[in-house]
Amino acid sequence: MVYDLIVIGGGPAGYLGAERAGHAGLKTLLIEERFLGGVCLNEGCIPSKTLLHSAKIRDYARFGEKYGVIAKDVVLDHGVVIARKNKVVKTLVAGIRSRLKANHVDVMEGHAYIAGRSDTGYTVRVNDDTFIGRRLLIATGSVPVIPPIPGVKEGLEKGYVLTNREILDISQVPGSLVIVGGGIIGLEMASYFNSAGSKVTIIEMLDHIGGNIDREISQILLKNYQKKGIEFKLNSKVVEIRDGAVVYECDGKREAVEADKVLMSVGRRPAVQGIGLENIGVEIERGAIKTDDRGKTNVPEVYAAGDVNGRYMLAHTAYREAEVCVNNMLGKRDIVRYHAIPSVIYTNPEVASVGETEESAKQKGIEFEVAKVSMRYSGRYVAENEGGDGICKVLIHKKYRNVIGVHMIGNYSSEIIYGAGLMIEAEMRVKDIKELVFPHPTVSEVIRECIFQFED
Amino acid sequence: MVYDLIVIGGGPAGYLGAERAGHAGLKTLLIEERFLGGVCLNEGCIPSKTLLHSAKIRDYARFGEKYGVIAKDVVLDHGVVIARKNKVVKTLVAGIRSRLKANHVDVMEGHAYIAGRSDTGYTVRVNDDTFIGRRLLIATGSVPVIPPIPGVKEGLEKGYVLTNREILDISQVPGSLVIVGGGIIGLEMASYFNSAGSKVTIIEMLDHIGGNIDREISQILLKNYQKKGIEFKLNSKVVEIRDGAVVYECDGKREAVEADKVLMSVGRRPAVQGIGLENIGVEIERGAIKTDDRGKTNVPEVYAAGDVNGRYMLAHTAYREAEVCVNNMLGKRDIVRYHAIPSVIYTNPEVASVGETEESAKQKGIEFEVAKVSMRYSGRYVAENEGGDGICKVLIHKKYRNVIGVHMIGNYSSEIIYGAGLMIEAEMRVKDIKELVFPHPTVSEVIRECIFQFED
Repeated sequence: MVYDLIVIGGGPAGYLGAERAGHAGLKTLLIEERFLGGVCLNEGCIPSKTLLHSAKIRDYARFGEKYGVIAKDVVLDHGVVIARKNKVVKTLVAGIRSRLKANHVDVMEGHAYIAGRSDTGYTVRVNDDTFIGRRLLIATGSVPVIPPIPGVKEGLEKGYVLTNREILDISQVPGSLVIVGGGIIGLEMASYFNSAGSKVTIIEMLDHIGGNIDREISQILLKNYQKKGIEFKLNSKVVEIRDGAVVYECDGKREAVEADKVLMSVGRRPAVQGIGLENIGVEIERGAIKTDDRGKTNVPEVYAAGDVNGRYMLAHTAYREAEVCVNNMLGKRDIVRYHAIPSVIYTNPEVASVGETEESAKQKGIEFEVAKVSMRYSGRYVAENEGGDGICKVLIHKKYRNVIGVHMIGNYSSEIIYGAGLMIEAEMRVKDIKELVFPHPTVSEVIRECIFQFED
Repeated sequence: MVYDLIVIGGGPAGYLGAERAGHAGLKTLLIEERFLGGVCLNEGCIPSKTLLHSAKIRDYARFGEKYGVIAKDVVLDHGVVIARKNKVVKTLVAGIRSRLKANHVDVMEGHAYIAGRSDTGYTVRVNDDTFIGRRLLIATGSVPVIPPIPGVKEGLEKGYVLTNREILDISQVPGSLVIVGGGIIGLEMASYFNSAGSKVTIIEMLDHIGGNIDREISQILLKNYQKKGIEFKLNSKVVEIRDGAVVYECDGKREAVEADKVLMSVGRRPAVQGIGLENIGVEIERGAIKTDDRGKTNVPEVYAAGDVNGRYMLAHTAYREAEVCVNNMLGKRDIVRYHAIPSVIYTNPEVASVGETEESAKQKGIEFEVAKVSMRYSGRYVAENEGGDGICKVLIHKKYRNVIGVHMIGNYSSEIIYGAGLMIEAEMRVKDIKELVFPHPTVSEVIRECIFQFED
């Protein structure tokens, strides 16, 4: 069977790309090895948000007194939370399946292997079948990085060391949980298991958590989680995983933390192995498929989108990249712009970010001005957050006066940040934003107040 | 004492106008009769949001089982909620006071009366003092409409009938509460008192609730609240308020609903009386100060902003109008555009809206296209809302392909809507929005999905 497009991988890049291609009339086949929806839907973004929502409800119920709500014997039933997570995932996977069907996309389950190239197109083997694709979209995603630390491999085998995959399905809340890596995944899982009753310790090699987020916001998040009882070992390198303990080195000294379970969340790497990329000569650079800003690889009509290109490793970047690939297949010139990609940490409080940070702007030599406002400027924030210490920071280009970065910590940030991305994309200047009407009382108003600190 | 600007009224229009004027170097006096912050801060937006947040927490705790959170004996302590509300208001009023001070604005408490005009400016009397203002900003706001229904006046005197002011301070949750008027205030108070344990009935003259919001969304909101146990009497006109009952007429028949308390929320009218507007000849039209789109009245250097101009009666419109007044005072030409003013109902679920509805667009003869998406398209929405039935609707101009209206029901809508207003203001077209990256998983993605239903 010959397809206009064969999509390899059914995660965000794969399913959305297939959907858009099918919608545009391309005869499309999507091949997924494991679960439709990919890591994001089955073992990442969505499951974690389901867990975190339950954690938030538990925290509200448990600490509601200050808001006038008294509840006794508040219990988070981890089993129910996991069962509900599975139901949510099932619902959403069904939704994707039905949208693919509605857009006439054929879906196959199995391992795809690119066998070679012929006059008609690229040969792809799945199970015992062979298909030809005039075009390919590689969207195989990424896998967790497993560092070569003594004890990790054995721990994984025994189920003592977990990745993002396994931790979302453990049936019992561990008494103590050590998380190796204080990035987004590590922090979100710390947030849930802290609320669920685990004693959580995060071990991070850097001197701060949250990766590339604004450093001041990283500090605020750290303090919030310290208050909640999470322990942080910064500047610390894990050197060994023993049965029942994680050994790390800090300032040249070795220490150990007891752990009933260990979560490895030190990063992810593109999944480029075992799919036959070498058979058609797809160029790999630093472990990722090399693409241009239209999503094209070095091989004609072979595109790649999502984590496999090693660029941003965020589901929404994958969406946009897949759309750009499909647009270019259809002859519509389109490129991905990476300067306004939001990023969110769904902890409580939430952190959201888009564009340049002070750190990145300095590094790039951009001349900028920065304004900062306490979230307590917002009436709604004060109404909803006893003792809240959130902030909002806006960066503008010193000369052109347009917004180049927005960074927030405080609840609702996750849902506010897209609009800040929009300001960056639309190249809105201080003057333009001053004329906008933000609904009162909302937390979004803090952006407006930051903007008013700048001269036109 | 001669001021560059005297601001009459310390609500959103007044305090923000004074702040911006002081910031720009105008010697400014702000006169407030009652409470700094006005109705919005003391008896409106902010107190209601404080109450509604407690109600939300109570609902989460009470109905947390479906999310795996079990809590026993969940009680909402109304006394604590009210005490906290007072604290929140106090905090925010103090914030306004300090910002006024930081911007060198003099603040006086007392009733302002415009006595006349002299060569230097306008004479304003406060208590026993007289001041001259080279310019005036009238920002006296609005007062509740009290309809001439038999029994209302007596009920108000006895404390049986309440307005938005009194209901925020009652010490006991009434066993039964009848709300006359199903607009924003009525619905928000219904939402709180329903969660607090009252038997709530809303009596509304129209065949729908929520005023001018999208009719389909109005229906969904109605169903949600019926499920929660609120009763609605639509197409019903209150004809008498007795001790213990409200009598209304529907389809020519008279019925009565028992009520321990009655909330009158049938609208607000501009506060134009008793401030001496007639002494300087300020033109009043249909009960409101007539202004042009720069906030100017018919009298030179006399501006009006906020509810008193009878236009939108929303705090954020007041903010923008006040800023426009001050900009024009400073010689910067600026006008208020009213086509992208968001509006929010902070019920649970929340409703948010900006721009044209299908109804308003038809009325104006605008040719439009509409796209609708279930909120259940959003993974985050599914993760956080068991059985949620929210929707998002986007209207675009048929010919120009730019967004002209966005309407949502579902939580987070309140914080998402500003970005939709931004799209309208920036005249973004379908094509532009398709290129934006919305963070995944967020509820904001429903806007993006709506946009994808349109052809470029």
